[in-house]
Amino acid sequence: MEPSHGSLLYEGKAKRVFETNNPDELLVHFKNDATAFNAKKHSQLDGKGMLNCKISSSIFRYLGKEGVPTHFLDEIQDCWMLARKVEVIPLEIVVRNIASGSLCRETPIVDGTELSSPLIDFYYKDDRLGDPLLTEKRVLLLGLLSSSQILEIETLSLMVNTFLKKFFIGLDLLLVDFKLEMGLARNGKLLVADEISPDTCRIWDRNIEDKQDRILDKDRFRNDLGGVMEGYSEVFRRINEAYS
Amino acid sequence: MEPSHGSLLYEGKAKRVFETNNPDELLVHFKNDATAFNAKKHSQLDGKGMLNCKISSSIFRYLGKEGVPTHFLDEIQDCWMLARKVEVIPLEIVVRNIASGSLCRETPIVDGTELSSPLIDFYYKDDRLGDPLLTEKRVLLLGLLSSSQILEIETLSLMVNTFLKKFFIGLDLLLVDFKLEMGLARNGKLLVADEISPDTCRIWDRNIEDKQDRILDKDRFRNDLGGVMEGYSEVFRRINEAYS
Repeated sequence: MEPSHGSLLYEGKAKRVFETNNPDELLVHFKNDATAFNAKKHSQLDGKGMLNCKISSSIFRYLGKEGVPTHFLDEIQDCWMLARKVEVIPLEIVVRNIASGSLCRETPIVDGTELSSPLIDFYYKDDRLGDPLLTEKRVLLLGLLSSSQILEIETLSLMVNTFLKKFFIGLDLLLVDFKLEMGLARNGKLLVADEISPDTCRIWDRNIEDKQDRILDKDRFRNDLGGVMEGYSEVFRRINEAYS
Repeated sequence: MEPSHGSLLYEGKAKRVFETNNPDELLVHFKNDATAFNAKKHSQLDGKGMLNCKISSSIFRYLGKEGVPTHFLDEIQDCWMLARKVEVIPLEIVVRNIASGSLCRETPIVDGTELSSPLIDFYYKDDRLGDPLLTEKRVLLLGLLSSSQILEIETLSLMVNTFLKKFFIGLDLLLVDFKLEMGLARNGKLLVADEISPDTCRIWDRNIEDKQDRILDKDRFRNDLGGVMEGYSEVFRRINEAYS
């Protein structure tokens, strides 16, 4: 059953966003749709919306307790999250601790290599352009952010990374990399927005050596490894055991 | 006829590089091969080697007079250049004044848009990886350059851009963008290396409105516009008239 909500503001690949009675608050519905490679690959995965909403909510609650400003307000029911309304910055901010994915296609760094320090990459959120990598100079040229905003975003991203790594290591999970979206609240404050889930993080089981078996995130879907929901469920099981 | 030279050190897509009797000097042979899209497109263009060698030599001489350090030593004969030996930095340094090419595929900036200030892009010279765009953070992570070396290279690139724009505007040509390669001489000095020619610059006729007719550079080859050598010849004719 859906909670009462206002009109649909936005429908993305994995979420729908609705107005509420409060102009500063939104209702976010996590869908079961799974997409990859700029939506060229598409599927329905029963339970994904619920798992991602629960995992995201737990992580946002944890980050909030550590003092990280996020858009999270409340978990309403299985697939629904109440969030502060923000003006979304059209960038995907990727923080990497271990090399994987596009970094290994675009540099000679081998998959699985631990990076000497976390790497931050900005990607332009534009499906038609295929979410291209942006240099800082291109971010500035496009007028997306000022230099001081870039610094603020990088600082917040590294703060999230520090806490998230700690969060996952406590669950015997390795945080390989993750994507953040951020936005500005009405008071101008920078908040972590969107979701933080196995859709947006690479998470490996720390105690499994096998390079495929250890994957508990969306790479199971991207790379046709099977057991996608089993991976997400395992992440949720460990979070629930430790944090409920 | 070939000048006397030592053994072949390197053969690239458009040039061959030979040792000489002097360990600090190289002989560069400009080939007629034209390639594009990471050598997926390949052709022979009679006269290209000669034109690029002559144009490059003229530009290096001009830059040298303006105080820009380059590897150029002498034009030996039609397709041969004597150059200082450098340790090549494995980056393509692209300076853009007007948006064109990959910048317009990777951002929403429309082809032909004059940029508010020159944009510098670094690409990793690696054919297997397809010469990917590198952010500064990736350049540092890969250990290719230090922060101070990046600054030195950017400063030198902008200096070259200032002089090259002046050079071309004097010939009624617009310098859209260009690629530089740089290297370190044995004494550690940073030098502009490789070539500067219609293979490595986008050059438009300032007095032609038509978006295809105005192109006098390798885009004629990339985009099958015909008249490739006519374009290169026109650039050379104007340089020769003004600077010989």
